[in-house]
Amino acid sequence: MSQSPFIQPSDNATITAADTGNVFHSWSAQAGLAPMPIASGSGVKVWDFDGNEYLDFSSQLVNVNIGYQHPAVVTAIQEQAARLATVGPAYANDARAKAAQKILEHAPEGMQKIFFTNAGADANENAIRMARLHTGRDKVLSLYRSYHGNTGAAIVATGDWRRVPNEFARGHVHAFGPYLYRSEFWASTAEEESARALHHLERIVQAEGPSSIAAMLFETIPGTAGVLMPPPGYLHGVREICDRYGIILILDEVMAGFGRTGAWLALDNFDVRPDLVTFAKGVNSGYVPAGGVMISEAISKTFDDRVFPGGLTYSGHPLAMASIVATIEAMEQEKIVENAATIGETVIGPRLAAMAERLDVIGEVRGIGVFWAIELVADAETREMLPASEMGAIKKALMAHGLLPFLADNRIHVVPPAVITADEAETGLAIIEKVLSER
Amino acid sequence: MSQSPFIQPSDNATITAADTGNVFHSWSAQAGLAPMPIASGSGVKVWDFDGNEYLDFSSQLVNVNIGYQHPAVVTAIQEQAARLATVGPAYANDARAKAAQKILEHAPEGMQKIFFTNAGADANENAIRMARLHTGRDKVLSLYRSYHGNTGAAIVATGDWRRVPNEFARGHVHAFGPYLYRSEFWASTAEEESARALHHLERIVQAEGPSSIAAMLFETIPGTAGVLMPPPGYLHGVREICDRYGIILILDEVMAGFGRTGAWLALDNFDVRPDLVTFAKGVNSGYVPAGGVMISEAISKTFDDRVFPGGLTYSGHPLAMASIVATIEAMEQEKIVENAATIGETVIGPRLAAMAERLDVIGEVRGIGVFWAIELVADAETREMLPASEMGAIKKALMAHGLLPFLADNRIHVVPPAVITADEAETGLAIIEKVLSER
Repeated sequence: MSQSPFIQPSDNATITAADTGNVFHSWSAQAGLAPMPIASGSGVKVWDFDGNEYLDFSSQLVNVNIGYQHPAVVTAIQEQAARLATVGPAYANDARAKAAQKILEHAPEGMQKIFFTNAGADANENAIRMARLHTGRDKVLSLYRSYHGNTGAAIVATGDWRRVPNEFARGHVHAFGPYLYRSEFWASTAEEESARALHHLERIVQAEGPSSIAAMLFETIPGTAGVLMPPPGYLHGVREICDRYGIILILDEVMAGFGRTGAWLALDNFDVRPDLVTFAKGVNSGYVPAGGVMISEAISKTFDDRVFPGGLTYSGHPLAMASIVATIEAMEQEKIVENAATIGETVIGPRLAAMAERLDVIGEVRGIGVFWAIELVADAETREMLPASEMGAIKKALMAHGLLPFLADNRIHVVPPAVITADEAETGLAIIEKVLSER
Repeated sequence: MSQSPFIQPSDNATITAADTGNVFHSWSAQAGLAPMPIASGSGVKVWDFDGNEYLDFSSQLVNVNIGYQHPAVVTAIQEQAARLATVGPAYANDARAKAAQKILEHAPEGMQKIFFTNAGADANENAIRMARLHTGRDKVLSLYRSYHGNTGAAIVATGDWRRVPNEFARGHVHAFGPYLYRSEFWASTAEEESARALHHLERIVQAEGPSSIAAMLFETIPGTAGVLMPPPGYLHGVREICDRYGIILILDEVMAGFGRTGAWLALDNFDVRPDLVTFAKGVNSGYVPAGGVMISEAISKTFDDRVFPGGLTYSGHPLAMASIVATIEAMEQEKIVENAATIGETVIGPRLAAMAERLDVIGEVRGIGVFWAIELVADAETREMLPASEMGAIKKALMAHGLLPFLADNRIHVVPPAVITADEAETGLAIIEKVLSER
């Protein structure tokens, strides 16, 4: 391995070589990886070590909602580092109490306390633990089209392919959710898709045995699975099924929460009341690893006199907490959530709809706020997905035009930071249209 | 809930009230909690919000090896925050490559790459994943007296009581490890305990079916379980059993690694060669949430052409990486690991041995470096553990004398930061002796 004298200015080739020689990467075969180097960023832009600039339409892994290097959040991290960089979870600390307060100010009605974790996966792990102990039941029901994290229970709650090589947890069952464009229910309208998806869900509950099901764990809007907007009435119906059978509803807002949809939480867009909400990413834009669970009064009370058998060394880490407080306050003051809503309504939504009209390769566009997916098809009639080789070429072309994209399966997700301006959004969308037109 | 205007100077009562009103705590019943507030620290000392000072003999959760507010690490976090506070795992970054290099410089022979996680639990999750996929086998064998983290697989690999309400993962089996003071093997010497523990372990492997066991996951020195020093030949024998049956050896160095034992890794104290090493805590003293897996060349190669089905948004987080580089460099330059060895050999070891001679309540002392346990007994003959009520009174008395202790079951763990001076160690040990003498 090389002994290059960085951390300091360097160049792309040096950084990539040092990375691949020493770093083992997520979700990848390791041979032949050539990860793009990122040196710094500002707002919606990032730079590599050779000085090339990119417009970020990915928010990294859909987490940099507040944009890169927001000065208030950077300063909050620096000041907290100067004061106290670590404190154990059994102690009390001002930054931790304040972060919990700030999150509760934006939580749905009835939420009482916050349990902090390091990220989204362990937020879901702990929410599942709470639901099982609160109900005394075993199973967790989630959707095939979902992602909930990479640890023991979270990865098996996940529905996508990443679950399959990792099925070492028990007590997980899966259902299909609504997705009219590729309906599993032979539906032809959104209303029909919603009603049939609810019927299917309730039949699975009944067939699994309602008294065996502790929780439903659903992304409010399944994200990596394709920004699958729930049709009218679906989430309200899920809540009704939960109530009918005494099941806890956990909404996973890890990707969709904290501004992504143009609302503080994605659930604010729907008529639904969860018992537990998990969060990470947008809560502090990933400036420090952090996640957590919003806990309803009823579930909180369960653990007043009974030991909660879960915890972690960095629960409520002070740097994470300071960055959460600063992020939420900046989002409030600068109306970043409102900006995401406006950009979605006035720029991304109309622009993508027009693009879909013009280009046969676009099968469907869907989304809200700064949370959109463009579904690409090889055949508009059969809706056959655009193959991986073509998606690879599209990714390359987008990057050659200076756009950092988020691609998943046959889709381009349009998920820029929530601070994006109308001009920046137009610029990125024009690149996408150009690349899709010229393929 | 109150709307107190902190983050800012406050007082203990305000902070504790705001905490318990909003924060849900790890491993606790929530009613009546009165968590001690910590405002700041320096070196081996911490202060609450009323200005009271404590000498830290806990290193929080045995993570602050480098002491509180080490200026080089604080500065590294501040500078990285100013440059780039977040970057996704698929990209390359100078801080990440450098952190992997620095860790590999202190890794055992044959380690090739580093996979970064958010903490110890997900380090163990991913090490288990690698072992299962590399071997094509299912089961993970760990010790009853162990702790491996709070997520799905890690908590079921854990042997202690925290596993019991969380047994939702499959493929875990447990064995007893060596612990001469409370031998499970009717042994009367360290040699006998070692040989019989190895016999027991091999019999479990044979009875479970050797071809079903992917990995043994062992803390090099079980920590929270009581700083259970492996007797001569034990870890070498474990490696031999692994070799005999094609089993991967994962050593969990989350608590014991990075200076705690007066060596860079605890395994450096023993004649043992692991395939995977998990780490967190001491690698950056917990200044930013971080953990990871050191991966042998053979296991790394398994995933050259095969996708590794694990990953996380904050893998190799830049603030964590910068803090790792700064921590390891400061430990090298200031000879902090050497200091831990000296303090263990010349102060803590002799002083505890003398204390054990004088006080009947001490059943055994054991440890190395700044990693020690004092086992307290109600009866020296029967070795009956000192009951929880008496341990509670001891904790209160230690804190009243200005010592922040780490207590577990019937033990006081002596686990100060590795930067502790001889004088500070003497001061803390004198408080322990006084409290134990006067009870």
